[in-house]
Amino acid sequence: MCRWLKLELDRKALGGRLRCKRLQRCTSLAAMGKIPALTLSGNSDDVRTKMVLVAAKAAGVDLKFEAKAGVPSIQYGMKTIKYTGAMLRFVGKCLEDTEVYGNTFFESAEVDMWLDWSLMELEDPPADLERVLKVLEKHLDQRTFVVGQRFTLADVAASIPLIHLEQQGKVTALGTATKRWLNTCKEADPVKNILGSHSPPKTAQPVVPSRPAAASATTSIASTPLIDPYSSSVRGRTEIKKILAAEDGGKGLIGQKISVCGWVKTVREAEKGKLCFVQLNDGSVPLDIQVVIHSEAKGFDTLKGKVGTGASMKCIGQIVESPGRGQAVELSVKDSGEVILFGGVDAKDYPLSKKGHSHEFLRSIAHLRPRSNLIGCVARVRAALAQATHEFFRSNGFLYVHTPLITAADCEGAGEMFQVTTMMAEAEKDGKPLPMVNGKFDYSKDFFQKPAFLTVSGQLSVENYCCSLSKVYTFGPTFRAENSHTSRHLAEFWMIEPELAFADIFDDMNIAEDYLKYCVSYAMTHNRADLDFFEDKIEKGLIKRLENLLAEPFARLTYTEAIDILIKESPKAGFGVPVEWGMDLGSEHERYLAEKVYKKPVILYNYPKDIKAFYMRLNEDNRTVAAMDVLAPAIGEVIGGSQREERLDVLDRRITEMGLEPKDYWWYRDLRRFGSVPHSGFGLGFERLIMLTTGVENIRDVIPYPRYPGHAEF
Amino acid sequence: MCRWLKLELDRKALGGRLRCKRLQRCTSLAAMGKIPALTLSGNSDDVRTKMVLVAAKAAGVDLKFEAKAGVPSIQYGMKTIKYTGAMLRFVGKCLEDTEVYGNTFFESAEVDMWLDWSLMELEDPPADLERVLKVLEKHLDQRTFVVGQRFTLADVAASIPLIHLEQQGKVTALGTATKRWLNTCKEADPVKNILGSHSPPKTAQPVVPSRPAAASATTSIASTPLIDPYSSSVRGRTEIKKILAAEDGGKGLIGQKISVCGWVKTVREAEKGKLCFVQLNDGSVPLDIQVVIHSEAKGFDTLKGKVGTGASMKCIGQIVESPGRGQAVELSVKDSGEVILFGGVDAKDYPLSKKGHSHEFLRSIAHLRPRSNLIGCVARVRAALAQATHEFFRSNGFLYVHTPLITAADCEGAGEMFQVTTMMAEAEKDGKPLPMVNGKFDYSKDFFQKPAFLTVSGQLSVENYCCSLSKVYTFGPTFRAENSHTSRHLAEFWMIEPELAFADIFDDMNIAEDYLKYCVSYAMTHNRADLDFFEDKIEKGLIKRLENLLAEPFARLTYTEAIDILIKESPKAGFGVPVEWGMDLGSEHERYLAEKVYKKPVILYNYPKDIKAFYMRLNEDNRTVAAMDVLAPAIGEVIGGSQREERLDVLDRRITEMGLEPKDYWWYRDLRRFGSVPHSGFGLGFERLIMLTTGVENIRDVIPYPRYPGHAEF
Repeated sequence: MCRWLKLELDRKALGGRLRCKRLQRCTSLAAMGKIPALTLSGNSDDVRTKMVLVAAKAAGVDLKFEAKAGVPSIQYGMKTIKYTGAMLRFVGKCLEDTEVYGNTFFESAEVDMWLDWSLMELEDPPADLERVLKVLEKHLDQRTFVVGQRFTLADVAASIPLIHLEQQGKVTALGTATKRWLNTCKEADPVKNILGSHSPPKTAQPVVPSRPAAASATTSIASTPLIDPYSSSVRGRTEIKKILAAEDGGKGLIGQKISVCGWVKTVREAEKGKLCFVQLNDGSVPLDIQVVIHSEAKGFDTLKGKVGTGASMKCIGQIVESPGRGQAVELSVKDSGEVILFGGVDAKDYPLSKKGHSHEFLRSIAHLRPRSNLIGCVARVRAALAQATHEFFRSNGFLYVHTPLITAADCEGAGEMFQVTTMMAEAEKDGKPLPMVNGKFDYSKDFFQKPAFLTVSGQLSVENYCCSLSKVYTFGPTFRAENSHTSRHLAEFWMIEPELAFADIFDDMNIAEDYLKYCVSYAMTHNRADLDFFEDKIEKGLIKRLENLLAEPFARLTYTEAIDILIKESPKAGFGVPVEWGMDLGSEHERYLAEKVYKKPVILYNYPKDIKAFYMRLNEDNRTVAAMDVLAPAIGEVIGGSQREERLDVLDRRITEMGLEPKDYWWYRDLRRFGSVPHSGFGLGFERLIMLTTGVENIRDVIPYPRYPGHAEF
Repeated sequence: MCRWLKLELDRKALGGRLRCKRLQRCTSLAAMGKIPALTLSGNSDDVRTKMVLVAAKAAGVDLKFEAKAGVPSIQYGMKTIKYTGAMLRFVGKCLEDTEVYGNTFFESAEVDMWLDWSLMELEDPPADLERVLKVLEKHLDQRTFVVGQRFTLADVAASIPLIHLEQQGKVTALGTATKRWLNTCKEADPVKNILGSHSPPKTAQPVVPSRPAAASATTSIASTPLIDPYSSSVRGRTEIKKILAAEDGGKGLIGQKISVCGWVKTVREAEKGKLCFVQLNDGSVPLDIQVVIHSEAKGFDTLKGKVGTGASMKCIGQIVESPGRGQAVELSVKDSGEVILFGGVDAKDYPLSKKGHSHEFLRSIAHLRPRSNLIGCVARVRAALAQATHEFFRSNGFLYVHTPLITAADCEGAGEMFQVTTMMAEAEKDGKPLPMVNGKFDYSKDFFQKPAFLTVSGQLSVENYCCSLSKVYTFGPTFRAENSHTSRHLAEFWMIEPELAFADIFDDMNIAEDYLKYCVSYAMTHNRADLDFFEDKIEKGLIKRLENLLAEPFARLTYTEAIDILIKESPKAGFGVPVEWGMDLGSEHERYLAEKVYKKPVILYNYPKDIKAFYMRLNEDNRTVAAMDVLAPAIGEVIGGSQREERLDVLDRRITEMGLEPKDYWWYRDLRRFGSVPHSGFGLGFERLIMLTTGVENIRDVIPYPRYPGHAEF
């Protein structure tokens, strides 16, 4: 089973996102097939068992419990973790998203400290309970929790033994602060869940000490501070993502004074103009924050008649619980708050003022369309997939190589390529026709002194680097001067082309599958709100399709096997183009295989040599080449790759067979003359990947500024 | 003081690389000015103090010791960490590169377990020493260290108390395994360093149990497994980086059977042809591994006459200690080993067979030059800086936007731009001149139905996305059809252009400075071996120049202040061009400021409006604009940016003043009509950044395939 798939399965087994490299590393060991899930064995009455169970709940770790006599321990495959401290730390470190081990590095040191303290001092029975309680009371005086602003392992280690002692009647007098804290702990979901609610059902209100907004940042999004560090011109801006995309929907910020900046999605007046409801968006998430501006707020009067859809403003107010549906909190701007209008909008001119524009209309205002929900979501997913691409290859030891865009290699024909020139402008300036020599333009006058074109693929260039540096990839713009008006073609698009030395066609399939899964999984983790939008508005069933892509290994079969299947299915399928060996498969055939036969992505390989490029490695059978295509349901071909022909004599023969000139490929041939190595690679159109991940059907809507015949605006 | 600078300073204070997000987060709190360095206070005879000191040494953490009565504790600014376990874990987690807390997630759980065990069981005096020693003896029987393959906190916690007890004469009978392990610990540098060498000076040979190469991966490089997962065609390949760039230079792998693949740098025969020394490189590091092939190795005979510089091969052998200088280990291929020649080389044809080629010659073989040390190092640093760029912006909440390369915006003039066309190829095919209408070419026949060009900047396009999504950047190819043959200009190069909404010129400076420092710091951390090469061969003093760039905040002054200084310095400096207010500063002036006056990078801002672009925000004084340039010693200008004019009336006035047509900028003006916001951005030529980081002086050597007049090969 492939490494990344296992990773994904393990991710599920653990119930969340994997924690950084370290876990991935051992999960890749785990992928060898030993490790199914975490089990805690122990006595369910044992206070140590309870502590670990509560900690696991709090951390979101799926821990199977198995009643067993003896000291509690965690089993993970062949491994055993024992000792309460080690078990608590283990579950606290399993997942990345949790803050149960503290929200910052120093908090985690404090948690360590309190863990040690509690495990030492609160042993059953404690040596000196009175002193212990005094320490706790003093420490908790100004605090909601033992460490930081959230329920952590430190609370687990201190509260569970104390509750245990309380139940045994051994605790008599608790200080006010300790009592408040203990109630807060008892009301915490993980504790309630494990211990049941035998604690008094009074609602313990956590004290959130009021503090300047800058001093603490405890949304789970926040790997960066709550306040944008690069926004001094509107000092104190908080990205809306940090509020609404926090795990608790922003509830942790209730009571805080916060300013947000953004563009107005909708405005509504209420209470005869005394109240103004604004939905504000800053592009950091698809969600809008609701801002309720009261007439006593500073700046309220400046809004009159200017604040329509598209207006930009800053709102300073207090985060309060929202009575409305669909949001946990809203921003309330009252007399201590303020609104500042950056730029108004005249509603009658603003092209996006109405709802429900067609995608086609949006393309005509490509400079404003990122303000629409659709294109905003696409932009975020596109950025995430680019990030995932770099992250996947970097973490697998690939070097990013910038292959050239302009190319005057002798072997490039002019078919479907854009020519790059400075001659036309020169000629127009002088008012003269283009200089010609022997029926051709006189390229000695051109910038590159020969015809130059925009690249159609970085592959040959990146192969050079592969045959020096072993593992490389290119990710850059690519061009086709194809006069195509379909929803699947662009004149300018982005391609990802990895190239691996010492790798054959099967390695190529492995990395292609792992890469695709990594990208989809990355978007599922980082862009769930965007994907939910697509599920809702673009493709019902999208999430399921993506989960399905991640769930199993892709099917793999040879072209020849595929042809056999398709011929057998032909009567039922009723293909428009009849199937026979040697043909180039059409989209109908490819999608039939992925959607009907296998119901998941399919990798076809070993294609007839006559329908594939000269550089693909000739197989032993002399009639197929080591080429592979990845076909996905609903999309069709997403990836095409091959093992490259590394044998100079075979390469030369193939070049000649194809009617090309070996000497035009002198430098490509050099790689086979000097230290040739087996190597493989593939290409993936980045926009295809975005369409696959979002369900958006027209390629013009997944790139910021689409270029196609007659269109190169903005 | 800026956040990243503080981060960098804290990095230094801690003596190494910061550990992941968590520390960065609190360091950014630390950046508020509280936290200088780590101090351990305690009694130097206290075994707990010793444990923490040894752990800090082992972790590479700089820990100041301060003798003080009472229990030991660590102070970090206002914070205190106490309890031995918490302190050990704290130093173990400070830095990212160390493996003192275990090399994998599960190892770290094991370390936690043994920490708890040791702290419990080895208290002074231990409750039941005999039982403790029995547990240890059994555990250590097949092991070199308590956990994994390296000295970890678990060894610290177990060995230091034991050594202490030994010195007090309390330990009498140690088992064989425990004795061997304890000697290994005593010989470990951190222990020797802290305890002195009162242990017997016998060399303890760690037992490395022989095991299949795939089963464990313990080089420090290894966030990925030792065996390349995508290399099944040469099953079992290990990247040379995983061996030579490991912290111990590969010593941890001694005795293991390993295969490497790569290209031969040099070959030497010895002992009358019975021995063959090969320096092999696979591009993963600048270092070559020495392979010693003995005549009894399988495949030895196939090498004769074929294995020269540039040949490619696979070598399967055993990692052994190297007797030679400059490498800790080498690969010994004897009778159980094998060599496989992938591709031979005819030395007389191979252009790279000799040493010391000129950079110019290397450019003529751009397809092979990544095999040279120089271009290999450049390629790795280039990839690292690209990665750093994405990482910096992503972690600061910026979205990556792909701005278009082909542009037919009405406002683009043809000066210094490449034109993109399909008309010339059409005309040549038909053998006809280009169609003309009214003295202009008939662009209605061209692909985009109007003149189209290659972009000179993504700024205007990325501003659209900024004014919807708040924080964005573009990183892509950019073009200049400048007929320039200097060592500082290319026709095709890569640019990074971030754009921030709700940000002014000072935010712009902050992010520019932070970004530059992040990139340089990233290369210093990840590419030290490459930078050492540049220091050695390209620029003496490079490392110092880079450290200097990181050490302090950049100087910041207005253009007007700079002019005053330059006028004052003029007699001494003897500038070629005299200095006066309103002039565009020349390179001599810029470098004088950075190199002579401030001796560090300088940010100049508020330039005269007449020498800057129309879109830069006009200042109150009505004669300067909010533009800024970052000037670096030895390089000159690296970054240029500005706050953008967000006021429509002022923008229109400036467009007109510059002799341009407001209507040509209709969509750019729309951003000011509809919800205008203050925003800022900058541009940085990626190749400039590489030159700055490597010291390489010709821009043609820092891009894989340089394009300049007459050159668009490969």
